[in-house]
Parts: sequence; C-alpha cells; structure tokens
Amino acid sequence: MNFQSSIVVKLGGAQGVDFSAICKDAADILKHGKQLIFVHGGSAEANILGEALGTPPKMITSPSGFTSRYTDRKTLQVFIMAVNGKVNSLLTEQLQMLGVNALGLCGLDGRLMQATRKEAIQSVENGKRKIIRDDYTGKINRVNNQLLHLLLDAGYLPVIAPVAVSTQGEAVNVDADRAAAMVASALKSETLILLTAVPGLMKNFPDETSLIRQLSCTQITKAMEAAQGRMKKKVLGAEEALNGGVKQVIIADGRLQNPITNALAGNGTVIQ
Amino acid sequence: MNFQSSIVVKLGGAQGVDFSAICKDAADILKHGKQLIFVHGGSAEANILGEALGTPPKMITSPSGFTSRYTDRKTLQVFIMAVNGKVNSLLTEQLQMLGVNALGLCGLDGRLMQATRKEAIQSVENGKRKIIRDDYTGKINRVNNQLLHLLLDAGYLPVIAPVAVSTQGEAVNVDADRAAAMVASALKSETLILLTAVPGLMKNFPDETSLIRQLSCTQITKAMEAAQGRMKKKVLGAEEALNGGVKQVIIADGRLQNPITNALAGNGTVIQ
Repeated sequence: MNFQSSIVVKLGGAQGVDFSAICKDAADILKHGKQLIFVHGGSAEANILGEALGTPPKMITSPSGFTSRYTDRKTLQVFIMAVNGKVNSLLTEQLQMLGVNALGLCGLDGRLMQATRKEAIQSVENGKRKIIRDDYTGKINRVNNQLLHLLLDAGYLPVIAPVAVSTQGEAVNVDADRAAAMVASALKSETLILLTAVPGLMKNFPDETSLIRQLSCTQITKAMEAAQGRMKKKVLGAEEALNGGVKQVIIADGRLQNPITNALAGNGTVIQ
Repeated sequence: MNFQSSIVVKLGGAQGVDFSAICKDAADILKHGKQLIFVHGGSAEANILGEALGTPPKMITSPSGFTSRYTDRKTLQVFIMAVNGKVNSLLTEQLQMLGVNALGLCGLDGRLMQATRKEAIQSVENGKRKIIRDDYTGKINRVNNQLLHLLLDAGYLPVIAPVAVSTQGEAVNVDADRAAAMVASALKSETLILLTAVPGLMKNFPDETSLIRQLSCTQITKAMEAAQGRMKKKVLGAEEALNGGVKQVIIADGRLQNPITNALAGNGTVIQ
C-alpha cells in the first residue's frame, strides 16, 4: 500500500472546459511526484450521439430537485459508446500524446466502482410524481482502491469514465462528480478538484464577482441552497468527499491555462 | 513475474460466434487455475455504427491480397466508439455478470499495444495501385507484458480491443487476429485460440469436411494459399504467434457450446 498523496481531478464536459490545457498541466504536475487520477463526464457527447442515432436524451428531475439522465437499456448502450468509447479513449490518447502513461477504465473494469442500481426512481413531470423502473442509473457504494493503487504505484494515470457495475454485474450510469468524490474518498486523496466552466460556486449565480472563495464543511447545507442545477451535485460530491476523508475539495475554472495548478493555488471555491 | 500458463482467446465478431457461450466457458476454465486473456474484434459493430452515423466503412485491398478497413480520423473515432465503447464494455459486462473479474483495455491504455502507424499504404482499386496517406492503421511491434502480468497476477481477466497506440501516442486501428498473436507471443502463452464462425481452416473452403486438423509450422506457407479472405490473417497470426514462442495455435469453431474447452480438446485446426 502506498501513501503517496494523490489528487483526483474531475473534468467537466461543459462547453469551454479545456481538456487540452488540463492534460498539459497534468503532464507538468506528474513531474513533481504527485499521483493523479482523472474522472470525466460525457453527457454532452452522449447527447450528440443519441440525437444522431435517433435516441435523444431524456432528463428527469427528482422530487428533491436533482436532474439526471433517464437511462433505459438502449440509452445505456449509447451512453457507454460515447463515454467509454469516445471521451475516455480520446482523453487517454491526448495524455499519451503528451507522454503521460494514461490508462482508461470504467467502473465495470475490475469492479472499479460498484453501485446500487436504483430499481425504482421517482421523477416529477409537470408537477406530478412518476415511478420509473427500467432505469440503469446507480449510486456508487464501493471503489476498488486496490486496483487503483496497483495502477498508480506502477506509474499509470487512471482515467475513469462515469459507468459503474451493479451488484449483479450490469453496467449503470453514475454521476461523474459523485464518482470522483467516491474515488477520492477511497484513496484518501489530499485534494479533489472539480473543474467546470465557471470560476467556482457563486453566491449569486451567474454573477462571477460573487464567487465564494472559502467554505467550511459546516456551511455546505447553506451553500447547497445557492447552488443551481449541475452545481448542486458538485456541492453534494464535495460534502461526500470531505466526509470520506478527503482533505479539501476545490471547485475551479476549467477554461483557463494550467487549471489544476490554478486550483491548487486556491483559485476557485475551496471547501475544507 | 509469474510463469503460470496462459491462454489467449480471440473472439471473432462474425455472425454466429456465440459470445455468451465463450464467456460461460471462460468462467469454468478460470476455476481450474488457468490465466485467460480475451482479444476481440468489432468490425461488424463499427460498420453498423458507421452506417448509422453517415460514414459507411470503406475496405481496401493490399497488393498482396489482404483486405483491411480504410481508417481516416473520423472513421477511427467511429471505430473506437464501437469497439472500445460497445464491444469491449459489453463483453466486460457479460463476464462480470458471470462473476468473472474482467477488465477492459485497448492498446492506448498504459501503452498496452504499441504499433507503427502505416504512413503510406498501397491499395488496389479496379486493378490500379493507389497510395493512401491519411490512414490510421498500424502494425503492433511491442506489447506491454508487464501490465498484463500485473493484472493477471492480481486475478483480472484482461479483455483487449483491437486499437493500438502509435509511437506519437495516436490511436490506430489494428487487426484483432494479429493483435491476439502479439499478445500471446509477449506472454509466451501455451495456447492461442482463434474462435471463428467456421470449424477451422479448410482445404476446400467452404466444404467443412475438408477441415485441416493438424498443421505443422513448416506447412503454413502452403496453407496460406488455401485460406480465403479473413482466414488469411488468422493463418498469418498463427505463424507470428508460433515464431513468437507460443506452443500451439488453434483455429476453432466459436458457434458451439464450450468453444474454448472444445478447442483445447483438439477440435479445430491445431497448428504447432
């Protein structure tokens, strides 16, 4: 077992997030002896592929206000093609082209991320509650950290797609921010960085001058109220990571040059 | 380094090859302490996806009579989505559902399979030779067997997609039969099994009663003349594997129940 400090970086797929800048920064940071793990999303790519194949995405909203992708078996296959096949492989390629020995994985691989499949989920549609039973989404409950240590100690940079394995062995779609939080918790990482297309959590979204620079663990419930849409899951992920033993979570701007280095310098919303 | 004997199984994607039977057989064989490695194709899935996305496949024939996929950058991305995203992930899922701890990889991952990209390839079209320069296909020249041993010794079954990494780090499409041969050579496997939709190499294709049951290494050049189409690459792969130190190559029927066990019992074309 290796106790070298690790940093988990979640790369958001939102427009403007600069994968190329993130990869270049990672190549530099690795030279300083840090262990890095990438976790990425891919909803945008899955939407594009779904549209092209005649299965456009359908989003659902839970009674508590979180949105997620409705994923029947066909949508799951499209999601896997886009996320594992395109985003994961091309990100791994981009890192390899910079001399970084990246290794792409999803939660199916070696049972890297095990999830409980949500067998009946509630959605709210036009104000009415509905039960959905053929959904392949899940909540991660276990990360195979032995596999991650095996790969990290051998010098690989794991690149992880947001697909988990259910208890029965089925693939399930999981939220990438919370997947990153679970991976960081399993590794007891020093830092989880959530890179996105905004400078961090804002008190009055979208007013960037209202950026919250510091947040303590106890202020998270209140911060959740300020969070809009996708940002809700980042704040939830941050809370899960801190509860899981991660020292700090930084929600930071993924549109800049050197975005990881910038985040580590405290630019963004630092949650401790 | 572990010297446990390993078996590399190539799963052909041709119609009739029963992935489910292969996976079930693998689950049984693993109980007897063997190490297994899967290598799969995916041309059929790539063709279907390409058609759906408006980039139908284009095959080219080399002056020496081998056919291969013409792979410009766009086709490469479609190929990766189908092969890494769909075939590899769903095969890994199928194995996980049987309790086999499979782990999907392609050659980009940890530079598992390094290839020389063919920068200028010759094709024959309507009897005329043509030079193609924007092709992303390659020939594997190195397999990262340390990574395979790391995973095998930790109890994982590697499932490998036919995508390699070029010297520059780019993804390239490679032939799956020859990829399987290179993997088996790198591991000095006792057996390479090439499962396909016919009973083996036939003297008079498609007459199945003309099955060649045994072939020595010295008879391969002559056998190559009998081989038709895709079978040529299997015979070439067999030759490369034997030259690489693999004890035997078996070209066998992938349409039956227990296809791996059947092949190991000598049903098929055994090349030594």
